[in-house]
Parts: sequence; structure tokens; C-alpha cells
Amino acid sequence: MKPVIDDVTSYIVQNYLSINVFDINDYQPGHSVDCVIFGYQDQELKILLMKMKFGEFYALPGGFIKINEHIDMAAQRVLYDRTGLKDIFLEQFYTFGAEKRPSLWDIKNEKGEPLFEQISEVNPELAIWLEKRFMTTGYFAFVDINKAALSPDIASASCDWVNVANIPELLFDHSFIVQKCLEQIRIQLNYLPISKSLLPETFTISDVQKLYEAILGIKLVRSNFQRKFLKLDILIRLEKKMTGASNKAPYLYMFDEEKYNALLQKGIGLI
Amino acid sequence: MKPVIDDVTSYIVQNYLSINVFDINDYQPGHSVDCVIFGYQDQELKILLMKMKFGEFYALPGGFIKINEHIDMAAQRVLYDRTGLKDIFLEQFYTFGAEKRPSLWDIKNEKGEPLFEQISEVNPELAIWLEKRFMTTGYFAFVDINKAALSPDIASASCDWVNVANIPELLFDHSFIVQKCLEQIRIQLNYLPISKSLLPETFTISDVQKLYEAILGIKLVRSNFQRKFLKLDILIRLEKKMTGASNKAPYLYMFDEEKYNALLQKGIGLI
Repeated sequence: MKPVIDDVTSYIVQNYLSINVFDINDYQPGHSVDCVIFGYQDQELKILLMKMKFGEFYALPGGFIKINEHIDMAAQRVLYDRTGLKDIFLEQFYTFGAEKRPSLWDIKNEKGEPLFEQISEVNPELAIWLEKRFMTTGYFAFVDINKAALSPDIASASCDWVNVANIPELLFDHSFIVQKCLEQIRIQLNYLPISKSLLPETFTISDVQKLYEAILGIKLVRSNFQRKFLKLDILIRLEKKMTGASNKAPYLYMFDEEKYNALLQKGIGLI
Repeated sequence: MKPVIDDVTSYIVQNYLSINVFDINDYQPGHSVDCVIFGYQDQELKILLMKMKFGEFYALPGGFIKINEHIDMAAQRVLYDRTGLKDIFLEQFYTFGAEKRPSLWDIKNEKGEPLFEQISEVNPELAIWLEKRFMTTGYFAFVDINKAALSPDIASASCDWVNVANIPELLFDHSFIVQKCLEQIRIQLNYLPISKSLLPETFTISDVQKLYEAILGIKLVRSNFQRKFLKLDILIRLEKKMTGASNKAPYLYMFDEEKYNALLQKGIGLI
């Protein structure tokens, strides 16, 4: 792991987790949640990453579980805190429970010292709590990028939408979590409201195809895809999309909500 | 919850979890695993249930996670301890993290006292540990009933294979866990080696159909199912099955392992 910028360490240690006031009795020990938040923009599938204040690190948004809080609510809280969004499609996909997962304590400063060692001085009880084994449960969400009001947490300089095809190496085991998340979404594809949650209200067939291609990580044959998707009978056709070359302009569509939801129950057998 | 037989309480308290020697520092706090172990016999889909020594209670096999043990290994250990089986298809499906899940402490004796109150006298540290909030991660496994050598745990009188269609109400939230498990299997159906793991080496198309019907909880049309399943091109046809009426005897089949595994990667799009 790359050495990190030292001059922000102290700030982070003082502020991350609100260390001075963090009471370990308020949280479920040894367990966290991490969220893979998907958005779709300019025909690109993106996820929300936190750029940390220390070094050039990216990580998934995540947090601890309050002792009186359902684990699903903890994930909802993380999603809300980072995007300002509520009532979003959010689903659990896997719990990562290796006996030794990488943690904050593996992050070293330029001298090779653990960056978060200072936590021990500020809140020794918290330091002991954090050093113990942690498992994490992964959730994924589908949000409308245009509606998200991003807000980084105390340890992050910014939240950024990053194309799934170009995700940098992430902190801890977060790269593995994203990979497992995509795998689970592919397996459950027919039963997830992916296109309805991620596409804008009106869209072209090309928009849908690019979305499926991004999720599956493969190219699809245009004519086959178009035929199968139209055959599902879940679309309402609108006017043509105005572009420069109007004779080649594609049709715009929107979903027939009722038909979409009915088909989702049986599985949208598209691919 | 029904009152329980009191005369075995003391035995359980002394022996369950090996209470005298149970060291909480050896285990991950606040987290357990529970296993839904499936088998298929006489054209019935079954799961393994533990019949408790106290009262008429049934529960899923489960256990705690050792502090130096991957959560997957904890599930494998539970599976091995109850069935004697290793190298079995075993997959995580969900983590149950409600803020207040029912626990041992909710089980009352005939006087309405918590059955496991005596733990406090024998091992007070353990009692405090057990009273805290617990989450559990569910796993499912597909085993060959004929190869399983069942062995109940210290709290159980017996392990029994119970038809999925006739599962009694289970202890704690285990009924909900089984329900969620079946839901997840249905969603992931095309990507799970269900038929290969659960059917005997040779089988009839009727055996396969009954298996799918039990998992999906619906009746399938015989001719449609047969046509679709044969069309998958993953079977090797053997001789006819000897029965009384030999002119109506169905063919026996076995799987072409290579073709089966190749198709499983792409999804066995049967239903």
C-alpha cells in the first residue's frame, strides 16, 4: 500500500468517527455495512466512490451498525448520508467474513507507521474495538445520478461517480466486494428493477442496451437485443428523439409501470 | 411460545455449548451461522431439522464463528458436524440483522421463567455474551441423503429430514430464514447445480420435474417440462427403468458432467 500524506493524519484521527465522542456501546461489535451505489449517465454505468483525504485512496461508502438499528437501516442511513436519497432500491447481496480482512490499521504513513495509531491516544477503548475482527455486509442500490446530492464523510475529500469499467484499486477488500456485487447482480438480473431504476424517464433502446452491456461486461448484438426487448411488451413508444440527422432519429420509450412490475415478478428473461 | 419440559433443562444448561469450558474470546461476538441443508428422496425435497431435547421444538443446524475462522468455514463445520459430509455445495444466501431477533432467552419453561437463565450461574460471562444482539448468516447446502450420517448436537434429541412442504413452525426466526432461502434459490435457480447435486446418479425425467416443482412450489406441465429439459442437451440416456408395467417404463438418464457444467456457467434457462 502506498505511503500516505502525513499532514492530514492528525485531522482525520481527531475527526474520523467523531473519535472523541464515539461510544462503542452504541454499535454492534465486529460488523459494518458497505454500499455499492450504482448510477447511469451518458450511457455509462457508474458507482459512487469516496476519495479519502489521506493519500490517493478510494473506498466504498460504509459505516457501522447502531446497536438498536436493523442492518438494512444502517445501509439506508449510509446511502442517505452520502446521496441525500431515501426510498431507493437497496438490497443486501453478501456478507464478507474472512478471518483477517484488511482494515484501517493496515494503512501506513510515510514512515511506515499505522496511520490510525493516534486513535489509541484519543479514545483507547475505540482503538481496541476497531482492532478486533470485522465482517461487513454488502448492499447495492440503484439511484438517479441527477437526483443525488453527494456529500463526502469526514474521512473523504470528495464523492465521485466512477465508470464501472475504470474503477481504480480500492482500499481494504472493497475491489473484491464490487466484483462480488456485479457477480450477484448478473445472477439475479431478471429479478432486479435495473432498467427502471437506472434509466431516465424516457430513453432509447440503445440506452438500455448499453446499460445491460455495462452490467454484463459483454457486447450484445443490436438487432437481437432490440427484438427481445421490444417483445417483452413493457414499453410505451413516444416521439422520435431529436438529433442532427432526423431521418435516423431513434424512438424514445418509457416503461409501462404496471406491465414492468408484473413481468419483474416472473423474471425479465431478456438475456 | 409453548412451555417446555422442565426436567431436561438442567442437563441442557450444563452441556449445551459445553458451557463450563466455553470461552467467549474464542468466538466472533454477536454473529452466528445457520444452515438450510437440502436433500431429495422419494421425489420429495427435504431439509435437515434438529428436534430439540426441550419441548416439541425444531430448529436449523447452526453454530458460532470461531475468532480465527472464515465465516464460510464455520458453515462447513456445522454441515460436517451434523452430516459427516465434506466438499459439499454450500453457499451463503443472506444475513439476518434485525435489531431484535428471538433468542434462547425467549424460551420459557412451564413456570414462565427463561429456560437458559441457569447459564448465568454456570458461566456468567457467557450469559452476558449470549444476551447481546446476534445476527446470523444463512447458508444452503445440497447433499445426498444416502451419504449423510446424521448426528444431533448436544441440545437436540435427533436430526430429521423433513419434507419442505410440511415444515413445522421453527424456533427463533428460523421459519423466516427457510422462506428467504427458498426465495433466493428460486431467484438464482439457473446458476445453481440443483439437479446435479440433489438427484441420484441415475434418474427419470419425472424425478427432475418433481424436484423443480418442490423448489418452485408450483406444478409444471409434464410435456413442456420434458421437452425443455431434453432440449438442454445435458443428459445421457440409459436403459429403461424396470417397473411392473414394462411397456410404460420411463427411461433412466444421467448427466453429461462436462455439458452440465458448461451450461451452468451460462445459466440453465429451464423455467
